[in-house]
Amino acid sequence: MEPGSMARRDCIDACLRCYRTCFEMAMTHCLELGGRHVEPRHFRIMMACAEICRTAAHFMLMRSEHETHLCRECAEICEQCAKDCAALGDMEDCVEQCRLCAEQCRKMAG
Amino acid sequence: MEPGSMARRDCIDACLRCYRTCFEMAMTHCLELGGRHVEPRHFRIMMACAEICRTAAHFMLMRSEHETHLCRECAEICEQCAKDCAALGDMEDCVEQCRLCAEQCRKMAG
Amino acid sequence: MEPGSMARRDCIDACLRCYRTCFEMAMTHCLELGGRHVEPRHFRIMMACAEICRTAAHFMLMRSEHETHLCRECAEICEQCAKDCAALGDMEDCVEQCRLCAEQCRKMAG
Amino acid sequence: MEPGSMARRDCIDACLRCYRTCFEMAMTHCLELGGRHVEPRHFRIMMACAEICRTAAHFMLMRSEHETHLCRECAEICEQCAKDCAALGDMEDCVEQCRLCAEQCRKMAG
Repeated sequence: MEPGSMARRDCIDACLRCYRTCFEMAMTHCLELGGRHVEPRHFRIMMACAEICRTAAHFMLMRSEHETHLCRECAEICEQCAKDCAALGDMEDCVEQCRLCAEQCRKMAG
Repeated sequence: MEPGSMARRDCIDACLRCYRTCFEMAMTHCLELGGRHVEPRHFRIMMACAEICRTAAHFMLMRSEHETHLCRECAEICEQCAKDCAALGDMEDCVEQCRLCAEQCRKMAG
Repeated sequence: MEPGSMARRDCIDACLRCYRTCFEMAMTHCLELGGRHVEPRHFRIMMACAEICRTAAHFMLMRSEHETHLCRECAEICEQCAKDCAALGDMEDCVEQCRLCAEQCRKMAG
Repeated sequence: MEPGSMARRDCIDACLRCYRTCFEMAMTHCLELGGRHVEPRHFRIMMACAEICRTAAHFMLMRSEHETHLCRECAEICEQCAKDCAALGDMEDCVEQCRLCAEQCRKMAG
């Protein structure tokens, strides 16, 4: 097994779970509740988080030498999304997955 | 030049323009106006349209033998998005790009 | 819980696992082995399979009314990828994930 | 018109053109020529370049406050792809689009 491959696998897992949670909650929970849940700034943060998680996973899967840069950016966006969702309330799953993903991404980014 | 390559090029152009218009309008115009513009059904149609356009372009760029299937589905979703946006109003750019894209996709699908 | 939500969850799981396996194997195993593993037709099938799985999952996550169409196309491409990989040999993980994904997608497509 | 919107529009144009050129050339020209064109390091750089261009465009289209970070990373990967393709030879279109995209992304990143 190549060095760092366990950390990468855990990080891909976390990124795909976080992509899934953010995107699904935005497109179901947030759209259905409306109000502050579809406020442009909040909704864009969730979409940005979903997209960077999907892309960071893609870079790790292809063993790009740039994977650590994507993971660093992913950790930053996930932290912001976790804070924004915690402040909004009624977004527990998203807060949890964003925090777990940020943690794994920081490990990968080194 | 390979057979069908002009039709493919025009269709990739149309798909990427439509992806761009649908996704940008959803994330700016629709989120900022709110109200019926962020009604779940409408917003999901716009996101589905953006995604199928991006994917159909990807299949054509890789010369997948399944490109015509993706183009057929893309034409259908673009038609629905054009109708939904025309009924909602104040979505002229989206209506226009969706119609142009549907037309090119039908040509590719044969 | 909404009707059909267990089938959708299982199908999203299968699609994301299959995306991951196909794309990772193409970008590591296939590129490193070379020869028949990078023959254009085979490599394109793997990339098409990875992309349709990613897109089908995206449609299910957003509860698009077109999700069943994407699942039907995904099942077809996964079956082709499983057959192509089985014929090539040394692609067991990909064969297995493609078959499991095709099965879940057929259930969703109804 | 919002401030910076001309620079953003030009950068989205450049990113989508570069995505298209890199991905299409990888999946047609490179796979068909084989040899050094499918050497893992080269092929991964092209795929990473296609993906970061697609993602940077997505971030700009959604007006994410993180768009400049993505553009900075995109400029770096495009420069690397341009150099790698120039060294390999017979990749003029890719070299040109990568350089143009890197230039626009540096302007956006500020």
